Amino acid sequence: MDIIAINENGFLDKIKGKNPLFTCVISSIETTTYIPISGVHRDVIKYTPAADVELVFCGKSLSLKTPPIDATGSPSPATITRACVELKNIKNLHIDAGAFVKPKIPFIEVDEKPTGKIEEGKAMDNSKELFEKAYLLGKNLNADMLIVGESVPGGTTTALGVLIGLGYDAEGKVSSGSIENPHELKIKVVREGLKKAKINENSSVFDVLNAVGDKMMPVAAGLAISFAEENKAVILAGGTQMSAVLAVIKEIDKDILNKNLIAIGTTEFVLNDKKGDLKGIIEQIGDIPILASKFYFEDAKIEGLRNYCKGSVKEGVGAGGIAVYCIANNLNPIKIREFIENKFDEWYKKP
Amino acid sequence: MDIIAINENGFLDKIKGKNPLFTCVISSIETTTYIPISGVHRDVIKYTPAADVELVFCGKSLSLKTPPIDATGSPSPATITRACVELKNIKNLHIDAGAFVKPKIPFIEVDEKPTGKIEEGKAMDNSKELFEKAYLLGKNLNADMLIVGESVPGGTTTALGVLIGLGYDAEGKVSSGSIENPHELKIKVVREGLKKAKINENSSVFDVLNAVGDKMMPVAAGLAISFAEENKAVILAGGTQMSAVLAVIKEIDKDILNKNLIAIGTTEFVLNDKKGDLKGIIEQIGDIPILASKFYFEDAKIEGLRNYCKGSVKEGVGAGGIAVYCIANNLNPIKIREFIENKFDEWYKKP
Repeated sequence: MDIIAINENGFLDKIKGKNPLFTCVISSIETTTYIPISGVHRDVIKYTPAADVELVFCGKSLSLKTPPIDATGSPSPATITRACVELKNIKNLHIDAGAFVKPKIPFIEVDEKPTGKIEEGKAMDNSKELFEKAYLLGKNLNADMLIVGESVPGGTTTALGVLIGLGYDAEGKVSSGSIENPHELKIKVVREGLKKAKINENSSVFDVLNAVGDKMMPVAAGLAISFAEENKAVILAGGTQMSAVLAVIKEIDKDILNKNLIAIGTTEFVLNDKKGDLKGIIEQIGDIPILASKFYFEDAKIEGLRNYCKGSVKEGVGAGGIAVYCIANNLNPIKIREFIENKFDEWYKKP
Repeated sequence: MDIIAINENGFLDKIKGKNPLFTCVISSIETTTYIPISGVHRDVIKYTPAADVELVFCGKSLSLKTPPIDATGSPSPATITRACVELKNIKNLHIDAGAFVKPKIPFIEVDEKPTGKIEEGKAMDNSKELFEKAYLLGKNLNADMLIVGESVPGGTTTALGVLIGLGYDAEGKVSSGSIENPHELKIKVVREGLKKAKINENSSVFDVLNAVGDKMMPVAAGLAISFAEENKAVILAGGTQMSAVLAVIKEIDKDILNKNLIAIGTTEFVLNDKKGDLKGIIEQIGDIPILASKFYFEDAKIEGLRNYCKGSVKEGVGAGGIAVYCIANNLNPIKIREFIENKFDEWYKKP
């Protein structure tokens, strides 16, 4: 089987033959412009979310000369997501929750202004409003099921902050988009933010989000609850960042998780990450399906894809979750790798 | 029958039992800030498109204290549209093609910058790109059929300009959102614009749009062609403004009109307007269904609605077209009037 399933609970049957909408929620975080919590290169960090969703939506990045690439030469996980969108003809619409640079494609605007300063405990002041907007948006999106991903450079730090703020044991457990994972730096940043915002056990989930979250989180949570309420399946497509969204969902509507309609969909690279512990986080939240797609990138012709197996990139732009959907609907994951190999020179301008 | 049908050609059967998406494309026009081509009050003209789609999407206007209201006290046609959305539970998502004020709801951004100066022949420089963006957007919107409306103050002037620019006999034929219709002023503005942009019989449809169109037009045209290509029905929901969109569609893809999947859906107030001639314009374009909804506002408890029968407002925000869909799907139009009457005091804060 090309999907590694933990607590599958019959979830895969709920997404077979269903007509999905894929959406990637993007945001930028001010802190990333001066504290190196993200593995994304600082020269392009402002453009990365836009370039990612452009690639997914129209097959090329418009805000950068090529799709994003990391320091080790690994292509953005948006290349996986685009492969899935084309191979299974998946409708997709993306959501801006405060990217510094706006995509040059039609996109859904929910908040123009970026996520703020995590270390000051001032991530945002409108998490509840963002949740409500996304909830209402969800009611107006027509699909049998939802796959929601993210592109938020620095987003594993905000995930750590929200998980700690909500009382979870998450230190040393969040993954990173780079081989090195600066756990100590991330912990310092969020501990400072939580302290400055005076977060304590009486704080609400929206207080925690406002302090150290990112704007992707209330938006993804609002969409997920909106769909699950209508008895539609939802794949939270991401790694430890989506575990934070799951924790937010649990705070807002504990019962919704009992419907067994919300799953984490990620990559084998996150699930097997020895510097993170997705499973250890999710188990604290509940009996939630964790589904991870296998990609067979160890056999890839492109070094940048082989590097995923060594810990580069790992996940993002919903790559793992949309691949889980595709594989559950009879796509051989080898086709994803081949699609990227065939497009690579065109995307990265190597004639 | 509560729908007046001209050249019906079997269109109504194509929308019965279908699951629609309603979208309202909004734009502002710089010219309206200093030349009185629009019936909308100058104090609120910048806020009107946002307030209209907010009312449709979430049941109240957020960018203005009340939903828009005209000089004679008539409520915005968005009140009709909202009634239809609620009564038939219609999914709706709205598109910004350059409104001065952005809606405070999730909306689809295609162009942040307003339509420019019509009298200078500089309406925009990107009509082709807007068409292409909307075409691709259409491929990612999931629905059996599309109803596309507009809220563009000053939009009957740009409609006149585009129709004249494309060679149609439209002088004195476009409607107006007010009882008085300043035909001479509109003609002067667009003649100036067409001259300054050097539009002649060799100009392309995109040249004409760039000169004297508004940004709603290429967006609505792109969506309509995108849906009709997939054999899905499209209601161009509006009066003479949508006749200009129809003319644009014909220039871009003449054959698509032969599929008989694109209709004009409007109100009885536009169809019966003695100061405009929708039918006379459409007949020059082709054998296109014109469907007009009846509202029985002459019996309304609210004077502002009764004034629609005397020529106030008449149409907008897709009101006529969405009502045609609802009536074709067994809604008694009296319910629309009653819905507005029941909500009126709440919307307009008269306790």
